[in-house]
Order: sequence, then structure tokens, then C-alpha cells
Amino acid sequence: MTGKRGLTQQHVARMLGGDSVEDAAARLAPDFKDLPKVPAGSAKVSRERAGELWEETGLPTRLKEILLDQSPGDLSVYQGNIENAIGEMRMPLGLAGPLRVNGVSAKGDFHIPLATTEAALVASYHRGCRLLTAAGGCSALVLYESLSRAPSFVFDTFSEASRFTVWAVDQFETFQQVAGTTTSHGKLVDVGVTLEGNHAYFNFEFTTGDASGQNMVTIATQAICDHILAHTPIQPQRYYIESNLSGDKKASTRAFTTTRGKKVTAEAHLSAELVKKHLHTTPRAMEQYWQMSAIGGVLSGTLGIHGHFANGLTALYLATGQDAACVAESATGVTRFEVTEDGGLYASVTLPGIMVGTVGGGTGLPTQKACLELMGLAGAGKSRALAEVCTGLLLAGELSIIGALSAGHFSRAHRKLARDRQKGSKES
Amino acid sequence: MTGKRGLTQQHVARMLGGDSVEDAAARLAPDFKDLPKVPAGSAKVSRERAGELWEETGLPTRLKEILLDQSPGDLSVYQGNIENAIGEMRMPLGLAGPLRVNGVSAKGDFHIPLATTEAALVASYHRGCRLLTAAGGCSALVLYESLSRAPSFVFDTFSEASRFTVWAVDQFETFQQVAGTTTSHGKLVDVGVTLEGNHAYFNFEFTTGDASGQNMVTIATQAICDHILAHTPIQPQRYYIESNLSGDKKASTRAFTTTRGKKVTAEAHLSAELVKKHLHTTPRAMEQYWQMSAIGGVLSGTLGIHGHFANGLTALYLATGQDAACVAESATGVTRFEVTEDGGLYASVTLPGIMVGTVGGGTGLPTQKACLELMGLAGAGKSRALAEVCTGLLLAGELSIIGALSAGHFSRAHRKLARDRQKGSKES
Amino acid sequence: MTGKRGLTQQHVARMLGGDSVEDAAARLAPDFKDLPKVPAGSAKVSRERAGELWEETGLPTRLKEILLDQSPGDLSVYQGNIENAIGEMRMPLGLAGPLRVNGVSAKGDFHIPLATTEAALVASYHRGCRLLTAAGGCSALVLYESLSRAPSFVFDTFSEASRFTVWAVDQFETFQQVAGTTTSHGKLVDVGVTLEGNHAYFNFEFTTGDASGQNMVTIATQAICDHILAHTPIQPQRYYIESNLSGDKKASTRAFTTTRGKKVTAEAHLSAELVKKHLHTTPRAMEQYWQMSAIGGVLSGTLGIHGHFANGLTALYLATGQDAACVAESATGVTRFEVTEDGGLYASVTLPGIMVGTVGGGTGLPTQKACLELMGLAGAGKSRALAEVCTGLLLAGELSIIGALSAGHFSRAHRKLARDRQKGSKES
Amino acid sequence: MTGKRGLTQQHVARMLGGDSVEDAAARLAPDFKDLPKVPAGSAKVSRERAGELWEETGLPTRLKEILLDQSPGDLSVYQGNIENAIGEMRMPLGLAGPLRVNGVSAKGDFHIPLATTEAALVASYHRGCRLLTAAGGCSALVLYESLSRAPSFVFDTFSEASRFTVWAVDQFETFQQVAGTTTSHGKLVDVGVTLEGNHAYFNFEFTTGDASGQNMVTIATQAICDHILAHTPIQPQRYYIESNLSGDKKASTRAFTTTRGKKVTAEAHLSAELVKKHLHTTPRAMEQYWQMSAIGGVLSGTLGIHGHFANGLTALYLATGQDAACVAESATGVTRFEVTEDGGLYASVTLPGIMVGTVGGGTGLPTQKACLELMGLAGAGKSRALAEVCTGLLLAGELSIIGALSAGHFSRAHRKLARDRQKGSKES
Repeated sequence: MTGKRGLTQQHVARMLGGDSVEDAAARLAPDFKDLPKVPAGSAKVSRERAGELWEETGLPTRLKEILLDQSPGDLSVYQGNIENAIGEMRMPLGLAGPLRVNGVSAKGDFHIPLATTEAALVASYHRGCRLLTAAGGCSALVLYESLSRAPSFVFDTFSEASRFTVWAVDQFETFQQVAGTTTSHGKLVDVGVTLEGNHAYFNFEFTTGDASGQNMVTIATQAICDHILAHTPIQPQRYYIESNLSGDKKASTRAFTTTRGKKVTAEAHLSAELVKKHLHTTPRAMEQYWQMSAIGGVLSGTLGIHGHFANGLTALYLATGQDAACVAESATGVTRFEVTEDGGLYASVTLPGIMVGTVGGGTGLPTQKACLELMGLAGAGKSRALAEVCTGLLLAGELSIIGALSAGHFSRAHRKLARDRQKGSKES
Repeated sequence: MTGKRGLTQQHVARMLGGDSVEDAAARLAPDFKDLPKVPAGSAKVSRERAGELWEETGLPTRLKEILLDQSPGDLSVYQGNIENAIGEMRMPLGLAGPLRVNGVSAKGDFHIPLATTEAALVASYHRGCRLLTAAGGCSALVLYESLSRAPSFVFDTFSEASRFTVWAVDQFETFQQVAGTTTSHGKLVDVGVTLEGNHAYFNFEFTTGDASGQNMVTIATQAICDHILAHTPIQPQRYYIESNLSGDKKASTRAFTTTRGKKVTAEAHLSAELVKKHLHTTPRAMEQYWQMSAIGGVLSGTLGIHGHFANGLTALYLATGQDAACVAESATGVTRFEVTEDGGLYASVTLPGIMVGTVGGGTGLPTQKACLELMGLAGAGKSRALAEVCTGLLLAGELSIIGALSAGHFSRAHRKLARDRQKGSKES
Repeated sequence: MTGKRGLTQQHVARMLGGDSVEDAAARLAPDFKDLPKVPAGSAKVSRERAGELWEETGLPTRLKEILLDQSPGDLSVYQGNIENAIGEMRMPLGLAGPLRVNGVSAKGDFHIPLATTEAALVASYHRGCRLLTAAGGCSALVLYESLSRAPSFVFDTFSEASRFTVWAVDQFETFQQVAGTTTSHGKLVDVGVTLEGNHAYFNFEFTTGDASGQNMVTIATQAICDHILAHTPIQPQRYYIESNLSGDKKASTRAFTTTRGKKVTAEAHLSAELVKKHLHTTPRAMEQYWQMSAIGGVLSGTLGIHGHFANGLTALYLATGQDAACVAESATGVTRFEVTEDGGLYASVTLPGIMVGTVGGGTGLPTQKACLELMGLAGAGKSRALAEVCTGLLLAGELSIIGALSAGHFSRAHRKLARDRQKGSKES
Repeated sequence: MTGKRGLTQQHVARMLGGDSVEDAAARLAPDFKDLPKVPAGSAKVSRERAGELWEETGLPTRLKEILLDQSPGDLSVYQGNIENAIGEMRMPLGLAGPLRVNGVSAKGDFHIPLATTEAALVASYHRGCRLLTAAGGCSALVLYESLSRAPSFVFDTFSEASRFTVWAVDQFETFQQVAGTTTSHGKLVDVGVTLEGNHAYFNFEFTTGDASGQNMVTIATQAICDHILAHTPIQPQRYYIESNLSGDKKASTRAFTTTRGKKVTAEAHLSAELVKKHLHTTPRAMEQYWQMSAIGGVLSGTLGIHGHFANGLTALYLATGQDAACVAESATGVTRFEVTEDGGLYASVTLPGIMVGTVGGGTGLPTQKACLELMGLAGAGKSRALAEVCTGLLLAGELSIIGALSAGHFSRAHRKLARDRQKGSKES
């Protein structure tokens, strides 16, 4: 049974267990028997309301003890960050660094809090931080910032769509005023237009102060759309506040070639001695790995070329109250390693758009705010510095993992730390 | 100052504040003054060790109180999941559903725990669950499963690389035995080869039992590589255990067109009445939105076409101890909405590769395990059922958001719930 | 021998014929025996020079008869379009239309010359033209035009790269003057910048008058680079006039989301009666095919979603003296079919960047110029009109092929016309 | 008027000339006045029939003289390759090489005919051939071959789609027999399945002998579909013979990560002396350019990383009667340049799928067949050798252009040869 069809057949047998295809199919049909009651849902967050939800659902009391009763403090701090609240999740927090960052906004030595459950992750980033700090720190810079929301307008003909577009682009200053009525922190800075047949897609680009800003730009764009519909000389057949063009929560080539969030870069020049001391390899071995892995990335069709941006990003996002779902869009970019004239290593990372803020979202919650304060990066005026520290962290992580891969001890690190684990399955 | 160059100039001025370009540049240079001591790092996890770390770093005691002292119970449960541990993060947990799932592995009504700090997220998924359950539930199925690790081998010529490949492919049964010595749950099921000049990239594909399995396949692949190097008739110049071809932690077109993790699909047929009652819109309006947003997705260059898979995936990954960094690779796929002959709505989601396990990783930690138990999906034999429930959840989320976008009240929901928040900035 | 490895083994056996792997490898090695003389090459084009080349190479006289002697007229017309000229290729020319085009630049009924050797191609486009003309013609519009050349500059640090960029963006008006010294038709209209670590990539965007313009922008960009190197306050380590960022001769997501060449769109509203009469199908069947094929395109990872833009583009490029290699970058975009409120069909095509000119390149050669004149589109002032006609042609082709696929007689058309062929293999 | 909106406004003004937006819109409306007669079309190809078409269309006689009357020989040789034939196109033919190719199928020194109208193209490829031949030739190899056609089947539920798939995959040997009734050269070798909701996409993979084979696989797949519909236990709602999944005539990530046509590679090791003598640069300068341009390619989002595959491919496709529209799908892949231990240059190109045949299509036409004969590659048994020579040519082209770019004289070559042109606009 050669080829892909053979794999398909093997797989089908495995998925069905002992069942026939027909038996399996029967299980998939809609089933109206004894439909459960689904409660209306509740935005109110408190220990009492959570207790009621446990009671209403009839879920086991011993789980309530773990998820609610063992949880310290006041649940109502989460009001506005969750609905149907039944308790708290807890996950471990580790520390990488201190990492010296030489940025325009971030300047100093930063202890970096990382929340993760993956063995070896903190250890690996920590190793990279040691190396960078020993080299006098990494340089880091926010290159650009912009957040977009992309409504679309549907017309009968592209002639109408074109005329509408000509009118709308001319209203830009008015749109800025309208947007300004909804937010004092956000600012409409540009609009791009994409015409596709009789569809007009607008990409409104904002700066968002120190907030990550997704809700801010949604609300501002709604106000602009309301204004457009009230004043346009040509009414669209219909319109949508988000056309799926903005790349929100999705890796996209458009975001990769422009910016969504903050475009950041970090770099360092490392001597061969430091590379040997900290990574047990050589600049040339790291460059050779990079060249091969660049092709590997191209052959697999990733956006950009890098090692594992998602690991550090997610752990820092979770520690600092960012929206971790944005990892889907943020974890792209380019890592580059080159041997320099003097035999050292040039290393850089550039990410087209990371989503970080120091106000709003989950940044004000107790442990999340504590982590931001631990770095000295809580509150207004700190988001660019946070972005620069984040990028330095990712550079540390790329150095560490590519050092390990080029030196050939990548799998041993995972094996050792994972096998230390003392519970659950021994494998993962 | 027309055009992109004008934006660049505006941006530069904003980034520099009052500084000159030269002053900013000076801040970016390496700085060897008063380099901080970076500790060696520690894999030991305990309340005592954490206390020592707080002391060594000299970080503020009031933060220690929040991150460590207020934290309940035994920190050592995290041994093997974190390094340099200094405490615990806490985030709120909400409940969606019950969602009726008609799957081959998952069959029943599931309360679904979601960990997030984003306003409206749980409420939106909950709304979709109500709709699906009222329709007799969604169908859901794991279509395929495979996890790969992709070593590469570098030769002098492609002639050597080809001969090596011919030899290696012939050793497949031996490789299976070698892999089998490292794991009883994982199984090598196929190997694909990509030749590029004098590089040979191998893609070893495994099934991983009920674990997500990234470490399992790394260790098995290391054993295979060790065997290869000991027995190959043609020695490579060098080799790497991971060539960046596997797509680990990265959205990639290769993973999108094959499978990395579990390929899953969920679907439902919904009457116009149910759509109206729960989403306040019509099947035709949802189909029209879908058609427009499919083009929007294509124009922005996403992998697949969908609304916001990352939101539900991340929240469920966090609640159940999955590796949230895998959202970067998992949050791709296709959502499809069509009006059926009888005027109802056909809705489906298909994701090429989600990474979920019910053993290993973070799945055994206290609150994470409690969440799996809450669904009846903890431990061995449950990973496919978890994948099916996960996919049903994502279908619920797509119905809810696209219902809102097609009915035009998307931004209002965000505005209301976000504005309920009682602390921090009023905007995010 | 299940799986991909099984296919690999089968393939290897087939490729080697009876040879062993080692024998095959021996054939691949460099071979210095009896190295042939490779002549220096000659830019001079004439019948005499061609005759000399035939003689020098010793190639068979009967081939010279076909390729040179049977060729009519003066070979020297090709001076500057070819080197090492040995004769002429001939390929058949067919006619589609007349197609009524309602464009801003093209207005009227156009006979469209198509050069191809593929059976059924002209017939299929002709069928679509009949339909569109019967519907009062298609609307067509050039939405944007821009051609870029993208030099890159390499520095020691991104700090230097940033300072260089700030300086260079400020010189824009000077760059316009410098570019203007090299061309009277081309005009520098914007510059975009992409920083990646210590690399600065510039994307100079030009309008190019009625020429396709690739050489024009290369020469202008060289002049700008010369100026930069003479005046920059920070010398780069090195620079390149083309960094591979412009997307020249390659499908790229950057070009897809911006414009390279001319962005064009064409559309038509077609009654159900016309669809039935000309395509033997219904608007709904075509919409259903489109919906499915949109997903098919997404699953295969094309840039945009369309049927077969490359067929019509290539045939028209060849007939009118365009650079057919540009099909690699031009043949992307979006086709969209929708049922309208009145039961008819809305059909549109939008291409982000086609490369067409009516002066320069091959447009002045005898048969190529005759084809442009046949449409009334030769010479200065006609390139936008040519782009609009081209887009209308592609709309005709999409209607025809998708009509055939939705009506189920796609393969029959190919079978019949291909089997008419009276020579060579009966299959292709 | 800063930003993209400013560019939009400038552009609109330019596009409209002196017209108002409303006047322009009026030109775009359907126009039923004096609709032209569109003839029925004719598959008959002969000088007489062509003459009749000129008469019927009333196109200028002086164009007929150029396109038909000056054309030598018998037009009816094109029967089955064109419809509505009105004459012949002519384009110049140049010669590159001889190129020494050390392939498994192609072994020897090849004069390579190239048809193009682009200045400097033949000269550039010729220069690369000189270098490769001086180095003992390039190695070249067909790594894989496969051509697919991808029908899709639409069901009510994915449960039905799954059951259908299980049945169909089990019929593979029958499908092979059915396909075999339609062709003696083509062979069904595998089938892949992609399920997306209630859609089942099948990818039938064939080998096609020495034909390029697009029509062959269409006809065979139609026979399989007919068989399926007659025998399936579960009837689909509808089906299509091509679902847009096969990547036919389109660059696609699926084809890039698998194979469509012939996967080929070519490589050479070149001494620093040869690089200096022929390219006037150094291996290190070429490696540095490659590293930078690899990032440039990644930042622009091309499939693979290369310089200008499309140029050589198109010119060789046109000279040898291939379908030049396939350049859209074939011109992707990876070029790689590295400095070797001994200071020389390793250079390779790998293309995942080029479409070449030596029988069928346009390969039997007079000048096309003469070009194949000129290489000794006409007719049955020669297609793999043609693929190997083609790949060697592309390697020559990459060496030449990247040599020029790294040595800094890229634009000068274009300037000189383009300015030699003695007619038409002086710029292009």
C-alpha cells in the first residue's frame, strides 16, 4: 500500500478503533436528546457569583476547591477581563537575566519575568541573557508603530467603489477629528485603500499610546464608519467594521511586510571568546547553522526566518498581562547571524509587529502588574521600553537555541530537564 | 511630504522625542560599565529556593508578596516545568458552554474552561456554544495526526546527498526500532525527504499517543541521528537535529498543507430560526460576510481563512496546560459558511494542526489538571476527545464573531464589556 | 512500503533505469575531458552574423534552414533585443473577440491577438469575449501604477543603518532630480524603507510613462545610488543596486499586497440568460464553483484566487512584445463571481500588478508592433489602454473556464481540440 | 498630504487626466450601442482560413502582410495548437553555451537556444555557461516527477465526505486501470486527500512519460471521476474535475513544498580563479550578496529564494515549444551560494517543479522541433535530459546575474545593450 493513500488507510483504521465507518458516522450526527440547559452568561465577577456558577453547573466540589477556594484574594479585580468567572488559573513564574538593554526607550539591566510550563524555556533564555549582558548588552529599538482596523464597503460596481474611495480619502482630516472624539490616547495617522472589484477595503492606521490598543481602534473605526454612512455621497450596499484584512490575531504576509503593533529590532556583536564561553560553539558554526536553517525556513514556508520567537513572546506576554492570542500574529520576523571581519558574531532579530502595552487589557491585574513593576515598566510612558526589552529577550533566546543546535546538544537539554519532572507521564 | 517617506519622517521625530539622531545612537552602543552579575540559574523549584532568588536579586519585597507569598500551596509541583522559579502567575478562569459535541472520541455535553484576560472573549464563545447546543451539537472529528522533527544533513555534493538518502530511506524499519527504544508512546510512522542542492532534509513523522509530544519526538529523532551517523556509508560534513523545516512554533505553509499535531474539523447545520434567535442575523448575511472576508483574508495573506481561532485556542491551551507558544503554529485553518438549500446555514472549521495532549507538559499541574477533569478529559486516552472539543469550541467562536460582524454590533460588544472594567486605563 | 518513503524508493528505481546508484553518481562528477570552446558572444544581429554562428558551432544545416533561411526579412531589426542571434522562432497567432471594453483609457471594440501553442486557449478566451460583448462589454480600469527597484545598504550596526535612513529619506527631492537626469519618461514618486538588523532596504517607486520600464528604473536607481555614495554622511560597508526585495520576475506577497506594474480591475454584470446562452450553466452554479475553488486556492497556497490568468497574459504578452518572463510576477490576483439580487452574475478580476508597455522592449519589433496596431494600441499614450484591454481579456478567460468547470465539460473541450492535432504524439 | 492617502490622491488626479470622477465613471458603464458581431470561432488552421478571417474582421491589409503574407510555409502545421488563426508571430532566437552538463539523463555539451526580446538576457546566460563549462560542467539531476489533477467532491456533511474518501482510497488499483484506458504514457502513481468540512479534495498524481502532460492527466482524471460517480456508495451533491488545488498555471506553496512537473537540481564547485576570470568578483562577495538577497527575498515574500529563474525558463520554454504560461508555476525554487573550505564557491539551484516535455504540445512545430533537435533532445525518451539541461542553464543564469550584482556592474550591462537598440523609444 504505497504512498499517501497507504498512510490514509492506516490512519483511518487507527482513528476508528474497532468501530466500522458507519458506526463512527452515526456518532457524528446531531443529537437532540436531553439537551442541556446553557445558562445566559454573566459579566459580573466575584467570589460569590463564581460560587453560584459552580453550584448551577453541578461540577465536582473538589475541582472548585482547586480552582476557586485555594485562590487568594479578591476575584472582582478581574471584572471586565473575564465573563462566567469560576476561579483562577495558576502557572509558574521564572526569571531570566538581568539582561542589559541599550535602547532608545529602555536603558539598563532588566530582570525578565517569564510564565510558562515548558521545561528548559526559562533556562535557555537565561543563558542567552548571560551572554548578551557579558557583551555589554544588546542594542534594541522600536522602528515603527501602527495598529490598524480594516472596514470594507460593498458596492454595485467598482466605478461606485472608486468614487466612494476618492471621496473618503479626501475626508481624512475629518476622520481624524471623529476618531479623536472616542479616544485621547489613540491617533489616526494614515489610511490605505485596497480596491478589489466592487469591494473597497480601508486600512485605518492608528498610534495607540501605551496601550496595545485593539479595542481602542475598533471603537474609533466604528465612529468613522458611522460618520461615513451619514455623509457619503454614494451609499454602499453593505459594510463591515472589520473585513479580515487587518490581520488581527493571525499571521499574515501583509502584516509581515508592513507593521502591526510595534516593529522592533535588537542586535549585538559578540566576540568568539564569549560565544565559546557561554554557548560552547563558534561564530562560524552558528553562521553555518543559520545559513542552513534559513533554507529550512524557506522550504517550510514560514513568514520570515527565525528559531522560536513564540516561546519567549508567549512567556513574557503571559507574565505581563498582554493578550497571548496575539502571539499568532506577533511571532514572525527575521533572525540573522553572520561572522564579522574580526571573527566575531553579528546577531540580530527584527520583528515586524509585536503587540505590547503597559496600560489596559490585563496589564493592571495583580500578578501581571507586579511583573511589569519588577521590570520598572508599569503604566503610562513605558510601552516602547517594554517592546525593546522584549526584543532583547528574543535575541537572547535565538542565540541560546541556535548555539545549542549548532553545538549539537539541543535534545540533551530537553531530555534532562523534562525528565526531572516528577509527576504525570514521563514523556511529552 | 507625500507618501511613505513622509510617514517615516513623522515617525522618526516621534520616536526620538526631543533627542537628536546622534544622541539616540549613543544610547544604543554596548555599555560595559558596572555590568550586573547574572546568576547561574537553577532548575530546583521550591518556595525556599524562590525566596533565595528574591533575596539575591534584591527586587522589591512588596512584589514578592504578590507573586510568591500570596501564592497557595506547594511550589515544587512545578519542578520540571520552570527554572529560576520566583512565584506564580494568576489569571481569571471563565466557563463556556455546556457545548454538545458529537465526535468519534468526544461524545456529550462539555463545560469548557477558558483562561484569558480579554474582555468579551468568554462571553462570545459562550454565545456560540449556546447556539450549537440548541442545534443538537456540533459534529467534530480528528482527521489525522502526526508530529515531525526534521534533521538536516550537509554533504559536499548533491550526488552524495542523494546516495545518503537512498540508503537512509531503506533503513526505515531500523529507524522505527531505534525510535522505539526511547519511547513507548511515540511511534515513527513515515519519513519524507527534501533535497536542496547538497542538503538533505528529513522529516520524521510520529504519532505521540496522548502527549502533545514535542520533546518525545526530539529525543527519538536524536537516537535515529546517532544511529545514522554510526552506520551511514557516506558521512555528512555536518548535521543538525532540527533544520527549521518542521515548522515547530511557527505558522508555516508546509504545516498548513500537511498536518502538524492533530488535523481536526467541526461542523453544524443551523436553521435560520436558530441563527436569528441566537445571533440576531440571517444565514445569507453570514454567508455574504464570509465571502467578503474570505477575500479580505486572501488580500492580507493569511494561512487559510478564518476569524479568530487564536482567541479560543489560547484560552483553552492556557486552561488545560498546553504549550501556549504553539498557538503560533496552530491558529491557522479554514472557516466556511454557506446557505443551504433549505435556507439554513452550513458552518464548518478545519484546522490542519492543533497541538493538544492530556498527559505531559503542563497538563498535570494543579489548576490545569483540574480544568481537564472538569471536562472529563484528564489523562491517557483522552487527547483526541480534547482535540474534538477544542474544534467545536472554535466553531462556536467563529459563529459568534461572524454573527456579530454580519449583524453590525461587533464594536458595541467590545465597548460595553471593556468599559465595565473598573481599574487601570479606560482604554485598551 | 507504506508512505512517502515508499514513493521515494519507487522513484529512485525509475530514475536510475538499470543503473546502480554508484554508476549514476559517477555520471554527475565534473568532467574536464575535451572541454568545448565557448565563443565570446556577440551583440551584433544580422543575417550574416547569424550565418557565421551556424558555421562556427557546426550545428546541422537542415536546422539552419528552418530557423534562419526560411525566416523572412531583415534580422537586424532585432539588434538590441537579442545576442548571439541565429534566427527566428515562429509561433501561431489567433484572434479573440472583438471584446467591447468600457475603460477610462480603452473605449471600444478590440480584436485581441493571442500567440500560443496550446490547444483550446484562444477558443476559450474567444468564448468569454463573445459573452462580455453581448453584455455591453466589460468595465476596466487601471487603479494604480508603480514600478520599483530596491537597493540595499549594509552597515556595521542598525544604529548606523537608522541614521543613514533618516538622512536619505530627507534627500527625496534631490533623488527625484538625480533620477530625472537619466530619463524623461520615468518619475520617482515615493520611497519605502525596510530596516532589518543592520541592513537598510530602500524601495524606490517610479512611474514609467508608456514603457514597461524595468531598465529605466534600474538606470535611474543606479544614478541615485551613485549620488548617495558620494554624499552620505555614513558610508555603508557595501551596497547592492537590487536586493531581491523588488519582486522582479517573481511572484511575491509584497507585490501582491502593493503594486508592481499596473494594478487593474475589470468587471461585468451578466444576466442569467446570457450565462445560459454562452456558457450553458447558471449564475448559481458558477458562484458555487467559485466558492469551492476559492477554498481550493487557499488550500494550495496561491497568491490570490483565480483560474488561469497566466494563459491569457502569456499569449497577449507574446503577441504584443511584452517580456513574457514577467508572467511569473503578473499572474496573480483575485477572480470573484457572485449571484446578484436579480439572479444574474457579478464577475470581476483584479490583478495587483501587470507589466505592460506600448513602447520599448519588444513592442517595436515587426510582428509585435503589428499586433499592437491591430488593436490601435501602438506607441506613446497607449499603455493604460492596453492594460485595460488585457484585464478585460482575463475576465473573459475566467468566465469561460469557470463556466466550463461548473457545467462539467472542461475536459471534453481539451480532449476534442487536442485530439485534432495531426502530428507528434497524440497525447500531451 | 502625508502618507498613503496622499499617494492615492496624486494617483487619482493622474488617472483621470482632465476628467472629473463622474465623467470617468460614465465611461465605465455597459454600452449596448452598435454591438459588434463576434464570429463563432474556428479550429481550422490554414492560410486560406486565415485570409478569410482578415477579410471578415476588416483589419488593415498592411498588418495582414506582416502577420500572414510574410510568413513562410504551411500554416496548417499549427492545426490543433491554435484557433482563429490569422498568421504567425516571429521573435529572435539566440544561442547560449555550449554548456557541459553532467546529468544522469543529459551528458554532454549543449548549445541552448533561447527565444526572447529582452536585451542582455542571452548574453548573461551565455556568460554563466562559459564559466560552468570551464569548470568541467555542472551536475544536474531530476529528483522527482509527478503531475496532478485535483477534483473535488461536495457532500452534505463531513461524515459523508469521510466515508466517501475511505471508499475511494480503497479503489486505487481500479483507478489505475481506469486511468490506463485513456493513456499509454501516463500512469497514476498516488492519490492524496484533503478534507475541509464537507468538501473532499483529491490530488491524483501521475507520471506522464515524455510529455508535459497537462491534458493527459485531465483526461485520465475525467475517466476516474466518471467511474467514481457510477460506483460510489455515497453520491456527492456535486463535483468538479479541477478544484483549483492542483496549482495549475499558478505559483503555489503546495507545489513549492511538493512537486508539480519535474523537481530538478544543478550544482557546481567553482574555484576562486574561475570566478574572478569570468565574473570579475570573488566567492566571498557572491556569498555575501546571497546572504543579503536571501533576506531580501524573505522580506518580499517570494516562494523560495532566487534571482531570475523566469528569464531563462521563459526563453527556453519558448524556443522548445513548452507552454510558456507554465512559467507562472515553474519559476520558483532555491539558489544557494556558499564559500567552501578551500575558498572556492559552491553554487546550486533547486526547482520544485518545472514543466517540460519533448513530445506533445508545441514541441512538434517546425522551429520548436528544430530547437529541440539542435540540442539532440527531440522526441520520446528525452524529457528528463531536457529538464537537466534546463536546470543547468538556470544555474548559469544565477551565477551570471549574482556575479554582476556582487561586482556592481548590473545596471551598466543593461544600459549598454538596451541603448544599442536602434528603434522605438530609447527607454524601456
